[in-house]
Amino acid sequence: MTVEGKFGTREPFAMPQATIAAQRPRVVIVGAGFGGLSAARALAEAPVDVTVIDRRNYHLFQPLLYQVATAGLSPADIAWPIRSILKTQRNVSVLLGRVTDVDTAGQAVVLADRRVPYDFLVIATGARHAYFGHPEWESAAPGLKKIVDATRIRERLLLSFEQAEAQTDPAEQRRLLNFVVVGAGPTGVEMAGAIAELAKKALVTDFRVVDPCDTRIILIEAGPRILPVFPEPLAAIAQRALEKLGVEVLLGQPVTKCDEDGVIVGGQRIEARTVLWAAGVMASPAAKWLGAEADGAGRVKVGKDFSVPGLMNVFVLGDTAAALNDTGQPLPWIAPAAKQAGRYVGRLIAQRVVGKPDRQPFRYRHFGDLATIGRKSAVVRMGRIKMSGFFAWLLWSIAHIYFLIGLRNRAVVALNWLWNYLTFERGARLITGGEEDAPVEAADPVDFRRRSAL
Amino acid sequence: MTVEGKFGTREPFAMPQATIAAQRPRVVIVGAGFGGLSAARALAEAPVDVTVIDRRNYHLFQPLLYQVATAGLSPADIAWPIRSILKTQRNVSVLLGRVTDVDTAGQAVVLADRRVPYDFLVIATGARHAYFGHPEWESAAPGLKKIVDATRIRERLLLSFEQAEAQTDPAEQRRLLNFVVVGAGPTGVEMAGAIAELAKKALVTDFRVVDPCDTRIILIEAGPRILPVFPEPLAAIAQRALEKLGVEVLLGQPVTKCDEDGVIVGGQRIEARTVLWAAGVMASPAAKWLGAEADGAGRVKVGKDFSVPGLMNVFVLGDTAAALNDTGQPLPWIAPAAKQAGRYVGRLIAQRVVGKPDRQPFRYRHFGDLATIGRKSAVVRMGRIKMSGFFAWLLWSIAHIYFLIGLRNRAVVALNWLWNYLTFERGARLITGGEEDAPVEAADPVDFRRRSAL
Repeated sequence: MTVEGKFGTREPFAMPQATIAAQRPRVVIVGAGFGGLSAARALAEAPVDVTVIDRRNYHLFQPLLYQVATAGLSPADIAWPIRSILKTQRNVSVLLGRVTDVDTAGQAVVLADRRVPYDFLVIATGARHAYFGHPEWESAAPGLKKIVDATRIRERLLLSFEQAEAQTDPAEQRRLLNFVVVGAGPTGVEMAGAIAELAKKALVTDFRVVDPCDTRIILIEAGPRILPVFPEPLAAIAQRALEKLGVEVLLGQPVTKCDEDGVIVGGQRIEARTVLWAAGVMASPAAKWLGAEADGAGRVKVGKDFSVPGLMNVFVLGDTAAALNDTGQPLPWIAPAAKQAGRYVGRLIAQRVVGKPDRQPFRYRHFGDLATIGRKSAVVRMGRIKMSGFFAWLLWSIAHIYFLIGLRNRAVVALNWLWNYLTFERGARLITGGEEDAPVEAADPVDFRRRSAL
Repeated sequence: MTVEGKFGTREPFAMPQATIAAQRPRVVIVGAGFGGLSAARALAEAPVDVTVIDRRNYHLFQPLLYQVATAGLSPADIAWPIRSILKTQRNVSVLLGRVTDVDTAGQAVVLADRRVPYDFLVIATGARHAYFGHPEWESAAPGLKKIVDATRIRERLLLSFEQAEAQTDPAEQRRLLNFVVVGAGPTGVEMAGAIAELAKKALVTDFRVVDPCDTRIILIEAGPRILPVFPEPLAAIAQRALEKLGVEVLLGQPVTKCDEDGVIVGGQRIEARTVLWAAGVMASPAAKWLGAEADGAGRVKVGKDFSVPGLMNVFVLGDTAAALNDTGQPLPWIAPAAKQAGRYVGRLIAQRVVGKPDRQPFRYRHFGDLATIGRKSAVVRMGRIKMSGFFAWLLWSIAHIYFLIGLRNRAVVALNWLWNYLTFERGARLITGGEEDAPVEAADPVDFRRRSAL
């Protein structure tokens, strides 16, 4: 008896445990984000051997990454080793490595130095930010997807103030204190609000020459309003909250150029030494690995069960997939959708390997949309409930702490937020040198862009 | 009236406040470690303008750096922005920048892009690790002085286990699981104990192939015993505690070679992919800047008031100075000595600028020696009191939390230690990519050495 091949018509296993162990179907999950982890967990009781492959040794709670970028939290507060998360699940092994290709004919995932054969493959490798065909903008306008992105942005933000303090040319000082955020989805809105608070509250008494209140934070959105997924009245409330924090909101005009001196938007140049990108994403190259059809953002077009057309034992989910929910709408690319899809696919595989019929089609449950603006304001839409202000912020905080992995992380994040709430201080304001420990030279606008992150 | 020149014979200021402000003596403090900060604080009430220059934007609590290196704490837990520390002291400005030289004739500190004139100069720039004339050992055996050192060591430790897990060659697997620490002063002892606990407790259930209990931790000391500054019986207790944690202690033989394959000690090769250096230090190049006489480790030989012979308005203290205490013994290079020296020098300057006679000669008060071995053991010598075991550990913990700057840091560190104490878990087990976000390739023993730190 072999376990190679398709499992849709298999009989349930009824062999002695030892024999099963040697021949159990191999499930390979690439990516330990929300989707991949929840797929692995859904296979906890299944008679399969699961291998989780990730380039990183940790699972990252991406929704709070902007707080690392704005010096509110430390990286370790929102990341947790994948091995620790899965350590009690004995049918899982974790492999640190980068997938370079998938051999769909030979049913193996290809890494630099090995092949990992699979009977079922789940790909949940997420997405990167993308620049609408302008990859050259990336160095001038970094995006926020990984921990190094966050620590680099933190360094850039903090160094801007240091350089402005040491700067004698008022024009350059102004450029250093202008911060542009491109894209007003939840990430852009949360970043802009957090930068405004960092500048105008946390740093306000720390400088002698620079008045951090002179900082300009400009949020640019090509669409007609901020937070397009939210109902219009909530978005308007969020915009007013941002403006109250001192954020300038520019709507309806796309950025046509990003460079070291700032951006051009609507034909006008906005001078800024710090431009942050929260506008576009591009899926990881899973479509290329699989030779599968993709949408414009590189997402693999998958069936209702997240399988790739023509490869019924290969599933793609989360930000890497273009899926439709049961109402025919595109599934949103947010953490709860990835989690639900992961759980669905995990259970589907668990049923197939024991020969049970496939499950009900996937139905996506949308719990709501949340975005926070600064230290004690948020907008929340949950079903018919729409909330804003302090209680929305409290709900946002509780929801995020609840979904963090690990009691320690929850406690540390809660403590940090309480501290920040009470004092306006930010605990993680470190500028740390990179690979060569290049010294920080204040007032050197070029050097710091090359430096690495902590 | 001019403020250039010496202040030993000056009359007290008696001018209106505004006039004073324009002409106050300028005190420049280079380095915001324990010595520099305490000098700045001692000048709080003095009619001077203080500029604190540091290459980093944060003060680092170096005694706990080994806990960042062994994934127990996050960098931000033991570092605090210099601006925040000094923000209420209105006569201080903070400048981020690297000093490249001192113009003692022109009385100015030289940075890459500017000169900062001084009337009084305090240099407290610390020390780096040194390799006894073998600088080429550094890449194979990193030392621990800065945050990037700590995050790189953390990455190397954690990657060793990942690579061993993916490794099929048993000899290479063994090399990956051998950890050598060179030097058995407090840093080496604390590192070795923390690695043993990381390997044998925190990681013990996380791996499938590797048994972390197979790790060997070898602590090598050229001298006849560990912890030479401690009384012999306490050092013996510490050694037994280390051995109980599984650390092998090798005494009386110097390391004669460090390379990518391990070390040679007493003519024998110990194979190890991870070698950590805690053996020698070299002072920062202050002696070169000043053209002053230095001892073998590059420390500036200073007078009883920490002034540099021939430059009575230039003071050097902390790890950068070779000073004698009032009994003629060399002043130890530890945090409390640097703090006391900084306070002494700050007060001395405060008195000179108002024309008061110089203070009493410096008298060093030695509070004690502490070193911790793992999760709940320590050795403490305070005056005639010698302690070891759990209560010594408790005392060590309380002392270290007390001396941390900032309530937030104290609370977070206390929470992390409590967590670690109760669960053996380590909260900061992140391997993060460096400048190019080079992917982690498991089982690639070369690649990871090039990667940067978080």
